[in-house]
Parts: sequence; structure tokens; C-alpha cells
Amino acid sequence: MMNYLARGFELAEFEERTARAQKIMHEQKLDAMLFTTEPNVRYFTGFHTQFWHSPTRPWFLVIPAEGKPTAIIPEIGASGMAGTWIDNIITWPSPRPEDDGISLVASFLNSLPCRFGRVGATLGIESHLRMPVNNYLQLTSLVKKEFVDVSLEMHGLRQVKSAAEIAKVKEICRITNVGFSKIPEYAKAGMTEREICKRFRIDMLMEGADECPYIIAGSGPDGYDSIIMGPTDRVIEDGDVLIIDTGAVRDGYFSDFDRNWAFGSASEQTKAAYRATYDATTAGFEAAKPGATTTDIYNAMWKVLEANGALGNDVGRLGHGLGMELTERPSNTATDNTVLKPGMVMTLEPGMVYAPGKSMVHEENIVITEDGAEWLSERAEPELIIIQ
Amino acid sequence: MMNYLARGFELAEFEERTARAQKIMHEQKLDAMLFTTEPNVRYFTGFHTQFWHSPTRPWFLVIPAEGKPTAIIPEIGASGMAGTWIDNIITWPSPRPEDDGISLVASFLNSLPCRFGRVGATLGIESHLRMPVNNYLQLTSLVKKEFVDVSLEMHGLRQVKSAAEIAKVKEICRITNVGFSKIPEYAKAGMTEREICKRFRIDMLMEGADECPYIIAGSGPDGYDSIIMGPTDRVIEDGDVLIIDTGAVRDGYFSDFDRNWAFGSASEQTKAAYRATYDATTAGFEAAKPGATTTDIYNAMWKVLEANGALGNDVGRLGHGLGMELTERPSNTATDNTVLKPGMVMTLEPGMVYAPGKSMVHEENIVITEDGAEWLSERAEPELIIIQ
Repeated sequence: MMNYLARGFELAEFEERTARAQKIMHEQKLDAMLFTTEPNVRYFTGFHTQFWHSPTRPWFLVIPAEGKPTAIIPEIGASGMAGTWIDNIITWPSPRPEDDGISLVASFLNSLPCRFGRVGATLGIESHLRMPVNNYLQLTSLVKKEFVDVSLEMHGLRQVKSAAEIAKVKEICRITNVGFSKIPEYAKAGMTEREICKRFRIDMLMEGADECPYIIAGSGPDGYDSIIMGPTDRVIEDGDVLIIDTGAVRDGYFSDFDRNWAFGSASEQTKAAYRATYDATTAGFEAAKPGATTTDIYNAMWKVLEANGALGNDVGRLGHGLGMELTERPSNTATDNTVLKPGMVMTLEPGMVYAPGKSMVHEENIVITEDGAEWLSERAEPELIIIQ
Repeated sequence: MMNYLARGFELAEFEERTARAQKIMHEQKLDAMLFTTEPNVRYFTGFHTQFWHSPTRPWFLVIPAEGKPTAIIPEIGASGMAGTWIDNIITWPSPRPEDDGISLVASFLNSLPCRFGRVGATLGIESHLRMPVNNYLQLTSLVKKEFVDVSLEMHGLRQVKSAAEIAKVKEICRITNVGFSKIPEYAKAGMTEREICKRFRIDMLMEGADECPYIIAGSGPDGYDSIIMGPTDRVIEDGDVLIIDTGAVRDGYFSDFDRNWAFGSASEQTKAAYRATYDATTAGFEAAKPGATTTDIYNAMWKVLEANGALGNDVGRLGHGLGMELTERPSNTATDNTVLKPGMVMTLEPGMVYAPGKSMVHEENIVITEDGAEWLSERAEPELIIIQ
């Protein structure tokens, strides 16, 4: 039985991740891969710190074609990195603007066996380099190898989760469910969005969340028009619909789902829109299985929304991958066509504009299993809850 | 009198920021500046959302040589951006991997009057582009202008804070002080680092913090060896020293300071190290005034630490700028030499290794005034607090 409260991962998990990366490197004819962002460095090392909130210093991780990763990091992180399974740790006294690690990374990459003359880095789709772009360009001139994009390969690696990773998402989904379930007990007209969200945040922390980086709220008479802003000091009134969407975190893994409530009363149109997104979620869940695609999930959900009068969708997709980041590849869209595999953790997020300026968005979290999918969030009520 | 609870900024603040940017553009012979990161987009627009936690979609802001900024953003952000002072908002249905905004940004930049043929972007020191580097390279080929680095200029713009910005930092420092002041009331040997930090986090939220993205803890017998990891499940024991460092946020502005406590007892060496960092803070404060430099602050502090037996410093600097991000330019180092100006919000962060594997780090927040500096954090006690 999985221990949902265990933190971090066993050594074997990091060895397995590194082996999977090295298999890709062999296929892609790479001598090394270079990483610069928090989730990618953490994925291979287990190095887990909030210090990435400080944008000052760059951090580098190099995975060679064979052997363990090497961390090339600011001196301030040396003792923390030494607590992971990484034993080759190269440091410099950062910040050092005139050479913030670049010559160290270059000479390390140049010291590796040159079989293919190629280094992989996340240069493309849904990626960025967490370093000055001028330093990256300098690095490519100092290193006698070609830099090639491995964004899609890295997304592919990370999007299939291990049992231990799924257990972490499951636990933070449980915590998030507890937080949401309490909202009807205290939320009432007269409170502000911010007051409700603060209580919700504290409830999730008390239940075991480490932090709740993403808590947004939207509200308005019989509907809301944005799902990425707030919470604000807007006072909830009778007749309002409120959405709260959250991404809470425990041990470095996110939940990401939302809930909707009406206050006092709700129009038939709003209740119908809620029911449509609920039914779309059911349809998306039924379409989610190994071998099917993200586009199958999209089509199944959009069909329900369209049949229920959807005027459009501002979100650009109906769900996405989830894990070490609030949103990960792939996306449930009409053209994404990613084949689903067991272990992929996804959100189902049917949303539609059902009247001008009024949206209804619903979201749940699932994991693809060997023969279908499993709910990670406890499903919302099939009918819109009206708080009196 | 400043209303410390007001959120956002007056329109004049954004007009002033834009005018200052356009003055720089004139000096640097730029037709436009392009921004991609949360703080830079928020600085000029007031667009404030937690949605940046989703790494999927790129966001762009262009400031032309004359006139208001233009936002080129995912459709999901349109209604939120429409709530700011920006009225030229160009959107596309992101995520759209085959062209995620790049052709829109290119054609907008190409449509601007071409006086100098140069576009500024944050390509250099302590910056990154929040977009795929391959998309940036494609953009530079689509736009018939030279891209030049304006990192230092942007850091320079942002590091001098307005009265309204300073008021926001002051308020979150007040909240952080309240949180720290309660710790001796409940922290005791037998609790874990994580338990103490959770209570601290909730106290700051209750006092008015929006979130506390950065709460780290380090502890150990008579000292700690890292100031960027944790909190962990390590149980505090008698004889331990505990440091908690935090960056809490209200309305998009950070505090960043720490506190140290001993449990049961502390060695004379540890008490002396604490006193040394306290005295170094005093020396740093006295050195902090307009016309002096970050290196003057560094030298004043390091002199005290060295005289008190500092074996070294793993942090790489003795404080830094602070504001919309946990750490901003400049740095208090031996070579930084940034001239201090009224309105600069800084941390004083004297730290030293005082015995092998044992560090003592102290931190306070100040603002440079017309004739010196003012404390934003309420100073720590001059002697190490020993919790019984």
C-alpha cells in the first residue's frame, strides 16, 4: 500500500528517470542534456527548494549519455544539493554577472565524450530557458557541439507519472476536496471573494497542503467573465455565481480543479450551463483511456457543450496535463492528438461561454490507467449548489 | 497620509512608469521594448494574476517609443487585461503550438514607426525570456529591427520605487513582523520545522498577507548549514538554533527577512555570531544613503563580520534589491558598486560561516531616503532569543 504521506522519492525513482532520459538521448543521438528550470532540475535530482522564487541566480543540470547527472549551481545551493542523490556538484560564488556559471557549464560539456556532437536543451514548445538568452547564445559558441531542442521529449518523459508521483497528486487532490467541501459551510452573500478564498486557503493548509500558489475567483450576477483573475474585494450578492479554481501543492505536486456555487438563486440558463459542463466531464472521462487521444477527450466534451448552446471557449483548451506544474503538456484540443498512456495525469476542464460575458467552467483531475481512467478529485455535485 | 490597504495603483503611476521607459528608449535609440515576464508586464500594465503559474502560454507586452503599451496575449487573459489601463489588446487562441503569438508580435513590431531600427528586450544580466528560445530566434528573423539588451535599464527603472510601491512593501513587512513576533509564543523543542512554519504562514495570512511563497527553515545543534532549504520534518531539540527566512506578499510586493532563535540554550560562539550579524546590520544601515554604493554597504557589513571571525559566506552577497520579486537587482557585493538612490528598497543580509557547517544569517529590509535610510522591517532583537 502506498504511503500517501511519504515525502520525496526512493533512489530508484531518480535512477529510472535518468535511464529514461538516457534512452531518449541515445535515440536522439545526444551526448548530453542541459536543464535550467525548477521542475526539470527537481525531476532528475529531487532538489526541492522554494529558493527558485529568487530570479537572481541561474542553476544548471547536465545529464551525460552515461552515468549520473552533474549539478552546476550557485554556492548557496551546495549543501542542499548534497542532500540529494547527486554527488558531482560544481559551484561558483553567484551572483557573478561577468560569468554566472557559463564558463563552468561550457567546460563541463566540452569535457564529456563527444560521440554525436549534440547537446539537447528545452528550446521549443512550452519551454523557456531560465537564464539570460545572451548567456545561452554565448554558451552555444563556447561549446563545440550543436544544441538541439528536446522540449517535446522532456514533456513526454514527465507526462507519464510513476505510482509514487500519482500518489502525491492523489493526496493533494484529497486535501483540495476537503477545502472545497467546507466552502458552503461558511461562504455567504456579503462576504468578499478575497475573504472566502483566504478561509479556503487556510483550510487546505490545515489539511496538509504545503502551499496554495493558485487560488483565483470570479463572480458576478448569474455568471462570471474571467477564470484567471481575482480574488478581489468584490462583495458576493444574492443571485451571484462564484467560481474558485485552485492549484494547491504538497511535496511538489499540484492539484488543479475548480468548483462553482450560486448564492440565493440561479437562473435556469446558469443551472443548465452547469449541468452541461458536468455532463461534458462525464463524456471526457469515458473517452479517456490508453490508446485514445487528447483530441478524443476534447471532441467528446465539446460535443456536449455545443449541444447545450456553447457560444465559444476563451480558455483555448478543455484540460491539460498536471503534476510538478499547475499545467503541463499535453492539451485537450481539436488538434493536439497526443496518445494517452497509463500514468498520465490530466485535468478535464470543459468550459463555455453560455451568454455574452458569462462563462461556466468545470474541472476535475484524473489519471489514465491500464484500461481507462480514475478520478483523482472527488467529482463535483451534478447540479449547481445554491448557497442560501 | 498613505493608505496602506489600497490595492493596485493610480493611473498616473503607470503613465509615469511608461514615460520613464520611453525616456530610456529615446536615450538608447529604441523604437520599442518587448517584455515577456510577469513582473515586467505587471509593472507597466497593472495586470495582476496568479495565472503566470501556468507555464503553457506566452504573454507579450510592447511599449512603443510614443503612446501606451500594447498587450499581445492569450485570449484567456483578454477580459482581465481589459480591466487595466491598457486598451490595445491583441489576442490569439493560445495554446497554439504552431504559432503561439509570434506572428502577431512580429507584425505589430513591424507596424511601428521605424526611426532607429532597434527593439529593446531583457536579454542579459539577471533576466530571462519567458518564451521558447527558438520562438525568440524566429521573432528576431521576422522583425526587421535589431534586438538589443535592456536588462540593466529595466532593473534600473524598477529598482527606484514610488511612494505607493514603498507603502506596499512597508505593509507586508509589518505583516511579516507580526508573524515572526508570535513564533516565540508557540515554538518549542519537540515541534518540527514544518509545524512551526505552517503556523507562521497562517499567522501572516490572518494578518493580511495574500500569500507566502517563500518560507524556508534551517535548524541544527548550535547552528544550521543551509538557508535555502526546508522546512523539513526535523524535530527541534534543546540546543538547536533555528532560522526562518520568509518572502511574504501583499498586492504583488514582497517582504524578505529572517529571524533566528535558540532552544533551551546556545553556545557563547553562537550568541557572538548572532551579535556580529546584528552589529553588521547596524553598520550596513549607517552606510546606506544616497550617493553611497551597494559596495559601501557590503564593505561596512563585511568588516564587522570579518572582525568577528567570519570563515566565509556561502550566499554570495550581503543583501539585495526587493519589491515585485523576492530578490531584485542590485546586490550588496564587493564589486557591485551600484549607486544608491532615494526610493531603492533593499535587504541588509549579513551572513557568515562561523564554524564548519554552521552559518548565521540576519536580514532586514530598508528603503533609501533623501538623506539616509529607513527601516521597513522592525529590527530583530540585539541578542539571540533563547526559547525555553
